Amino acid sequence: MTTLQAPDTPFLALDVDRVDANIARLRQHLDLLGTPLRLHVKTAKSVDVAARAFGGGTGPITVSTLAEAEYFADAGWTDILYAVGLDPHKLPRAQALVERGVDLTMLLDSITQADALVQHCRTHGVTIPALIEIDCDGHRGGIRPDSADLIPIGRRLADAGCLRGVLDHAGESYFATTADDQRAAAGVERVTVLDAADRLRQADFACPVVSVGSTPTAHATAELTGVTEVRAGNFVFFDLVMAGIGVCRVADLALSVVVTVIGHHGNEGIFTDGGWMATSRDRGTAQQAVDQGYGLVADIDGVLIPDLLMVGASQEHGVLSIRPGSSRRLPHLPIGTRLRILPNHACATAAQHSRYLVHHGGSTDVVSQWPRHNGW
Amino acid sequence: MTTLQAPDTPFLALDVDRVDANIARLRQHLDLLGTPLRLHVKTAKSVDVAARAFGGGTGPITVSTLAEAEYFADAGWTDILYAVGLDPHKLPRAQALVERGVDLTMLLDSITQADALVQHCRTHGVTIPALIEIDCDGHRGGIRPDSADLIPIGRRLADAGCLRGVLDHAGESYFATTADDQRAAAGVERVTVLDAADRLRQADFACPVVSVGSTPTAHATAELTGVTEVRAGNFVFFDLVMAGIGVCRVADLALSVVVTVIGHHGNEGIFTDGGWMATSRDRGTAQQAVDQGYGLVADIDGVLIPDLLMVGASQEHGVLSIRPGSSRRLPHLPIGTRLRILPNHACATAAQHSRYLVHHGGSTDVVSQWPRHNGW
Repeated sequence: MTTLQAPDTPFLALDVDRVDANIARLRQHLDLLGTPLRLHVKTAKSVDVAARAFGGGTGPITVSTLAEAEYFADAGWTDILYAVGLDPHKLPRAQALVERGVDLTMLLDSITQADALVQHCRTHGVTIPALIEIDCDGHRGGIRPDSADLIPIGRRLADAGCLRGVLDHAGESYFATTADDQRAAAGVERVTVLDAADRLRQADFACPVVSVGSTPTAHATAELTGVTEVRAGNFVFFDLVMAGIGVCRVADLALSVVVTVIGHHGNEGIFTDGGWMATSRDRGTAQQAVDQGYGLVADIDGVLIPDLLMVGASQEHGVLSIRPGSSRRLPHLPIGTRLRILPNHACATAAQHSRYLVHHGGSTDVVSQWPRHNGW
Repeated sequence: MTTLQAPDTPFLALDVDRVDANIARLRQHLDLLGTPLRLHVKTAKSVDVAARAFGGGTGPITVSTLAEAEYFADAGWTDILYAVGLDPHKLPRAQALVERGVDLTMLLDSITQADALVQHCRTHGVTIPALIEIDCDGHRGGIRPDSADLIPIGRRLADAGCLRGVLDHAGESYFATTADDQRAAAGVERVTVLDAADRLRQADFACPVVSVGSTPTAHATAELTGVTEVRAGNFVFFDLVMAGIGVCRVADLALSVVVTVIGHHGNEGIFTDGGWMATSRDRGTAQQAVDQGYGLVADIDGVLIPDLLMVGASQEHGVLSIRPGSSRRLPHLPIGTRLRILPNHACATAAQHSRYLVHHGGSTDVVSQWPRHNGW
C-alpha cells in the first residue's frame, strides 16, 4: 500500500476520520435544532468528501461555481444552490442544468438581475428559481430587509414562478472571536433573513426557503426556528483560522500539505519544497490574536512540532522557523524529512491541488485518492 | 470569432503583443551584454508562451517543478534546469527525463544532497548533472561562496561527472525600489556567484555554467562578464509588483483577469464574480509604496479606470472601490459589465487558472487558447 512517504511532494493529505468527526459534530448539532444542512462544497470540491455528509449518498448542496454544479450533477446530485450573485451571462448554463433535471436555485439581489432571470425564463420556456440575497452585516452582497427593492424583486420573481425564498451569510462571524460573539452573529443572521421573509409573506408572496449559514454561525447557533436550511462548508476540513476563533481545535484539522525538507539556512531556517503554490498565499491568521504564519508544522504522523512555523514562502520554497518570541531551538530535520503543514485557510490551500491522498488518523497509509474539481 | 465578452467569467486574458514586447525588450538587453536567456517557465507554465521567447521554437529553460520539466519535454524541449533544491526522493523522475534524452540539470547546496545524487547515479548507471546553489543575499537557499562545504560538494559532484557549475538568485532585488538598487543587487548576484566559480576552478574543478537571474536584476544589470546564462520568467507577463519597483510600466502588463459586475453595495462598492480564487491571495503590493489592493481595474478594452481598485476578495466575490484618499466617485458600472483586473503577482494569479485566452493589444478578439500545466 502507498503511504504518505511515497508520492512526490508537495501534495494534500486528508484525514478522513477527522472529516467524519467534523461532519458528525455539526450534523448532531443541527439535528438537535431540527434544521437540515445544505453542505457548501466549495471547500472540498469533491463528490467523495461531500458524500461523507450524506451517508455515502447525495443531498442538498451549495456551490460557488457552475463548474461545481455541473460536476456534482454529473455524479447524480440534483439539489443544488448556486450561492453567488447572478451574472445574467451565465443563464444558459443554468438553464442546461435545469433541463437535465437538476433542481438548481440561483441567487440575486437586484431588480436588474430579477428582470434578466425572468426575461430569460420567459424567452426559453424554463423556470429557474432564485433566492433573494439579504445583507445582515455589510460583509458581502445582498439588500437589507427594509430595502425598497425587496418587494419589487419579489414580485418580479413571484410573477414568473421563480421566487423560492431568501438567504443571508454572516461574514462578520469570521471575525467573532468568542462563542458568545459567534452566537450573536448567528442571531443577527437568522433575525435579518426572517425579517425579509416576513416582508415578502406580508406582501402575499410564498417564501418557502429561508437559508442561513457560515461555518462559525452554524456551530454557534442555538435557535433556528423559521430557518429551513443551514449552509456550511469549511467545517469538513477546518483550518487555523477557524481554530483561531475557537470554532474547532487544531486537532480537528483534517487537511495538511505534505512537504519535504530540501535545505537549511544555518540555525535560522529550514527550506521545504512546499511554497505558496502548495499552501496558497492565504495568511488569514495574520489578522488574528496568534499569527500562525503560513501554517503549523507537524511530522508525517501528524504530531505537531512545538513552535515550528512555516514563516515564509516563495513559489516552490517554504521556509520553516521557530515562532518569534519562543526560546525553543530549531529541531534537527535532515534533508528528505517529510512534514505536514496545517493551513490557514483550507478552501484556499485545497484549491492549489487537484486531488486528496486520503488516510486515517494515526496512519500514513493512503487508502484512497479523491479528485477535486477546480475551475469555473 | 470569440471575444473577451463571450466566455463565462472569470478567466485569464493574455495580451500577446505585450508578451512579445516584454520578451523583445529583455532579449535586446541581454543580446547587447552577450549573455543568453534561460527562460523561467514557472510564470506562464505554457509551451505556447515560452516559444515566443525562442522565435516559435525551443530553447534553454528553467522549471520550478518536475511536472513542468515533463510537460516541456513532451513538447520537445530538451535543455532544462530544475531550479529548486534537490529532494532525493525525486531522483527517479529526474533519471527518467535524462534517459529520454533531456539535458536536465539539478540544483543542490549540501553534501547530503550531493551524496544522494552521486549514489543514485552510480547505482543506476546514469549521469544527472547539477549546479551548486550559492546564496548572495540571504533570501533563499544556497551556501556562501566561502562556505567550507563548497569544495567538498564540488569534489563529490566532479568525481561522478555531475558538476556543471554554480547558480544564484538575487531575491533581495524584489525589494529594491530604484534602478540603482536593482543594478547593485545584480552586481552582488554576479560577483557572489563568480566568487564561488573561482573557488571551484582554483580547486581544479571545471565550472562551465555560471547562472544568475531574477526579473529585476536581468533588466538592471549592465555587466555580465563571466556569467553564462540569465534566468528570468515573470517579465513575460509583468505585474503590479514589478511596476511598483519600476522594472516595467503598468502599460506593459500582459495578463489580466476578466470578471463581471454582479452587484453593488450602495455607493461604496461594486461586487464582481472574480474573488481570490481568480486572482490568488497574493497582495505583493501591500509592502510597496503604493498598495494596489488585489489589483487595478480596467475596462474590457484594457483602459484603466482611474483610482478604481479591487479592494477585497472572498472565494468567488471581488469587491471594487475607490482608492483610499481619492476624491473620485465610484463609476457607474451596471450588472453584467465586464472588467479586467491587473494582478499583483502574475505567477500567483496565473496559477489559479488552467488556460489563457489570447488577444492582441487594443482588441478583444480571442485569437487562441493556450493551456497551462499546473501541479507537481
